[in-house]
Amino acid sequence: MGMTGVLRPGHAAIRVLDMKEATHFYGEVLGLIEVGRDSYGRVYYRAWDERDHHSIVLREADSAGIDFFGFKVDSVATLDRLEAETQAYGLKTSRVPAGDLLQTGERVRVEIVSGHTIELYAEKGKANSPQMVDNPPPWNSESERGIAPIRLDHALLYGPDIEKVQDYFVKVLGFYLTEQILMEDGKTQLAIWLACSNKAHDIAFVRHHEPNKLHHVSFLLDTWEKVLRAADIMSMNKISIDMGPTRHGVTRGTTIYAFDPSGNRFETFSGGYQTYPDWDPLTWTWDEVGAAVYYHDRALNPAFLEVVT
Amino acid sequence: MGMTGVLRPGHAAIRVLDMKEATHFYGEVLGLIEVGRDSYGRVYYRAWDERDHHSIVLREADSAGIDFFGFKVDSVATLDRLEAETQAYGLKTSRVPAGDLLQTGERVRVEIVSGHTIELYAEKGKANSPQMVDNPPPWNSESERGIAPIRLDHALLYGPDIEKVQDYFVKVLGFYLTEQILMEDGKTQLAIWLACSNKAHDIAFVRHHEPNKLHHVSFLLDTWEKVLRAADIMSMNKISIDMGPTRHGVTRGTTIYAFDPSGNRFETFSGGYQTYPDWDPLTWTWDEVGAAVYYHDRALNPAFLEVVT
Amino acid sequence: MGMTGVLRPGHAAIRVLDMKEATHFYGEVLGLIEVGRDSYGRVYYRAWDERDHHSIVLREADSAGIDFFGFKVDSVATLDRLEAETQAYGLKTSRVPAGDLLQTGERVRVEIVSGHTIELYAEKGKANSPQMVDNPPPWNSESERGIAPIRLDHALLYGPDIEKVQDYFVKVLGFYLTEQILMEDGKTQLAIWLACSNKAHDIAFVRHHEPNKLHHVSFLLDTWEKVLRAADIMSMNKISIDMGPTRHGVTRGTTIYAFDPSGNRFETFSGGYQTYPDWDPLTWTWDEVGAAVYYHDRALNPAFLEVVT
Amino acid sequence: MGMTGVLRPGHAAIRVLDMKEATHFYGEVLGLIEVGRDSYGRVYYRAWDERDHHSIVLREADSAGIDFFGFKVDSVATLDRLEAETQAYGLKTSRVPAGDLLQTGERVRVEIVSGHTIELYAEKGKANSPQMVDNPPPWNSESERGIAPIRLDHALLYGPDIEKVQDYFVKVLGFYLTEQILMEDGKTQLAIWLACSNKAHDIAFVRHHEPNKLHHVSFLLDTWEKVLRAADIMSMNKISIDMGPTRHGVTRGTTIYAFDPSGNRFETFSGGYQTYPDWDPLTWTWDEVGAAVYYHDRALNPAFLEVVT
Repeated sequence: MGMTGVLRPGHAAIRVLDMKEATHFYGEVLGLIEVGRDSYGRVYYRAWDERDHHSIVLREADSAGIDFFGFKVDSVATLDRLEAETQAYGLKTSRVPAGDLLQTGERVRVEIVSGHTIELYAEKGKANSPQMVDNPPPWNSESERGIAPIRLDHALLYGPDIEKVQDYFVKVLGFYLTEQILMEDGKTQLAIWLACSNKAHDIAFVRHHEPNKLHHVSFLLDTWEKVLRAADIMSMNKISIDMGPTRHGVTRGTTIYAFDPSGNRFETFSGGYQTYPDWDPLTWTWDEVGAAVYYHDRALNPAFLEVVT
Repeated sequence: MGMTGVLRPGHAAIRVLDMKEATHFYGEVLGLIEVGRDSYGRVYYRAWDERDHHSIVLREADSAGIDFFGFKVDSVATLDRLEAETQAYGLKTSRVPAGDLLQTGERVRVEIVSGHTIELYAEKGKANSPQMVDNPPPWNSESERGIAPIRLDHALLYGPDIEKVQDYFVKVLGFYLTEQILMEDGKTQLAIWLACSNKAHDIAFVRHHEPNKLHHVSFLLDTWEKVLRAADIMSMNKISIDMGPTRHGVTRGTTIYAFDPSGNRFETFSGGYQTYPDWDPLTWTWDEVGAAVYYHDRALNPAFLEVVT
Repeated sequence: MGMTGVLRPGHAAIRVLDMKEATHFYGEVLGLIEVGRDSYGRVYYRAWDERDHHSIVLREADSAGIDFFGFKVDSVATLDRLEAETQAYGLKTSRVPAGDLLQTGERVRVEIVSGHTIELYAEKGKANSPQMVDNPPPWNSESERGIAPIRLDHALLYGPDIEKVQDYFVKVLGFYLTEQILMEDGKTQLAIWLACSNKAHDIAFVRHHEPNKLHHVSFLLDTWEKVLRAADIMSMNKISIDMGPTRHGVTRGTTIYAFDPSGNRFETFSGGYQTYPDWDPLTWTWDEVGAAVYYHDRALNPAFLEVVT
Repeated sequence: MGMTGVLRPGHAAIRVLDMKEATHFYGEVLGLIEVGRDSYGRVYYRAWDERDHHSIVLREADSAGIDFFGFKVDSVATLDRLEAETQAYGLKTSRVPAGDLLQTGERVRVEIVSGHTIELYAEKGKANSPQMVDNPPPWNSESERGIAPIRLDHALLYGPDIEKVQDYFVKVLGFYLTEQILMEDGKTQLAIWLACSNKAHDIAFVRHHEPNKLHHVSFLLDTWEKVLRAADIMSMNKISIDMGPTRHGVTRGTTIYAFDPSGNRFETFSGGYQTYPDWDPLTWTWDEVGAAVYYHDRALNPAFLEVVT
């Protein structure tokens, strides 16, 4: 009751081509806090206002992209139940042992039909920031080191069969559809936004012929003024901006899309609305697809549909 | 799973001393949209971005204050279940027939130990704003008529035995404690903030010797700049401001407290954070109670503890 | 002493292809206040916070562009003196009689070497807004009707021989150079920004082979949040955006370039700094020309150099 | 012509009771950049976006307050001329030799009838910040160290005979009156705001029985969001806030008044408008004096009229 089951996006495991470049970017430019490295050479980060041990895990690899995207669930019992229900639904699952990710309990992996690996887990260590719990200030010095997002917010993934992905997230994981863009036929979904919370999106998918692609991992900023500051910092560091600052029609959020040094798109965004599962999903028609994505330009840039990792 | 059970604050029924003054204030200055009047003379409003028929109900009476505060639940089955569980918990309930409030289904009333009347309901008509669902713009002309809050957000109520109130909201209604202020003894709660969502508060209580008192009903604004605009509009309309613009330590929200023409305090606020039930509640100690409430002044004004309706 | 001589940009006379479309745009979308029409069919506007009778004059014509750009000077004596000094400097001047523009005194016209017509005048009627002088509110309902800029701020003009234009504005009119972009040779100016005030620019020029071209007329907004609102309103009205919201490196201003229905570019901007004549001009080198114009993208879009009216 | 004569406020010399406390406050909390100390033990600061060597000079003394407030003029010739005209006007002047203040040329001191010492000077060393002149970024790391105002903006001084002060500033120094508050009689000025630029105030005076008193020295911030950040930093550092965040009716600026550790009031403000000498001064009547000063509360707090140093 209230908020139960799947609680929130908890981690994104991102492949980078050069770890030294990547840690400079994620640590100094994006301004995440490095919280650990593991025996595989993976580097862990959290955003300044997150309460769990980490949310971003970088792995050096020959190709950029996303290894997996994980959600925290409210208990081990829920984890076990969702594993069983996922198997009953017909998707393949596997277990990753506790400790494989630093300070993280057992994870259940699900291969969804878009080709992505979604993880569920119930246990992760707490962030080492007690000053933010007892008489907490509204922000601290970490809030102004680099772009300094508040948290990992969501991911937008590209792959096929997104209507089946939606079916699984809704029927098994308890998500609901908040917005969608329809294609020319007025029926087929080009893109879907799904939430397990009051947020306008905890995960989103765009229909795409190649499976298992990453469009972007998204980080939350506090205000439109912080979006400007983020764009300034990107310019100061010669980060390649794909689009923005602008507004999305979908979610109303104000946004910048840009690329990490490995070519993984990331988003820094602010705003949007809070939503509820009993609300009708907002629906964008094909003639308004430009405004749905880039509200000010009212047209897609080619990179939106084509450049993924 | 995900968001279920109690979804959100759905209505506040406020007593006003003079309906003509009140409708000028709520309709023109606060900028809510009048959506109906009933045979009892009650006047109904919704905020521009709300999806349900109404959220504020005004009733003319000899004393100001709040008649009841209602929460929308996800289904009639949930309503029935929560009624039964409330009775089993030992609180008295009653049913108000469908249609007593315009476009609203049956309501279950609960008399909680702080003396307040809390309502639960599963059905309410939709707002007549289709343009906000299909290819919706991020805002419209109603967003700039008066103060124009986004929605009714929460209420802060004053009464005794708030630890028992918390116990009921947590055990039966599925809320969780997000923040608290402790008294000199380091144990007794002076104030509690409770959520059934990602919001930092859906309802809050302050310990007070008199039962059934209203401290404020709160309305959400989009940004700190809109808080400034709200304060400007209050001044232009000679609305009495109690405090602000300032920031709360609790919830980090930026805020103004002011009074409607009947003396009911209301809040227009922005900001804050999104929270989860697995997080530790933020705790403010007695020596920091000033900063907890008014972060900039670090001291309570006498009205905070004494002026209620 | 203090501020004397040429005080500020006072009017821009813009050619539009269709007056009905134009008045809808300037009056309802941009949100200027129509203050009069004259016997030539010209339509006059002022921005909500301007103190003079008008600042924008529209004339229907077969080609878009700017007829003239005028500056208010502090007295008739100054007007006479500047006319004489302009003639002595070697530029051709002419007089336009009082009343040719509504509520405007005699104007001195100067044909500058870039091909543009610059006007000077000492007398113009006051805006009919007494409520903004006695116990004035910080803003009023006109501030939220359409984009609602604060004022006409400056113009950017394209033409040849801009170093000679600078010489005239500095030596005769008392302007000073605030910023410049240099070409590949490190010497030739690609663009110059000139001020007669504390503003980062009262007029600016870009070197261009065709004379007498308009790049944009610019309107001031209060904040970056108002820039977002302006972009939203442009989208709602399907106004074609050229670039933005973004930041200029030059002046630090945050900005949108867009086109009126006749294809005249206009700018809505906010921010920037206040400057003084004893400061060194800020200088941008050729390798940073992209950042100078569009700070976030760090690259010019082709339209910047090519699309003028 | 254009901007000539007196250009801007250039320095404020403030007396502090304890230099160690003061340097912590001005350097770390307010976030000015320490640029030197002289043989008298005075400590010099500039704000991050200022172009001259320093703007604030602290001197340890037995009483708080202001020693002098200085204006930069455009040339030595102007300095000589203003000295002569001041003497001819009937005010006493004196010369302070070059080098008495670090990197500062000869200063002309004027004892004005309100009891304050006003200085004029033509020469001061440049700030050591070349990176802000060639391909300058819009801000840098100093912009986020402490409150980090953009510049010293103005001072508000308390003393008698302010109509005579106005007469001198207007007739000799070339200032103009931008706003005024009138007393009950509708004629006597309670307060005056004077500008030598486009700024709404370069200096201001309130009528007061004691001569030579400081109400506040004021520092400019970029935005209302930076005003919030300033208030947060004040709270984090337990700086005593007198009033705000709020808006002034006069100048429209958004503001906080607070006290340095010695009890000198300072202001951090943002916003306001740009004004011109040919505009009518804005006039506030006695019944609106509350709104003139504190636009939201519409009432003076007692400290405004009584607490000065």
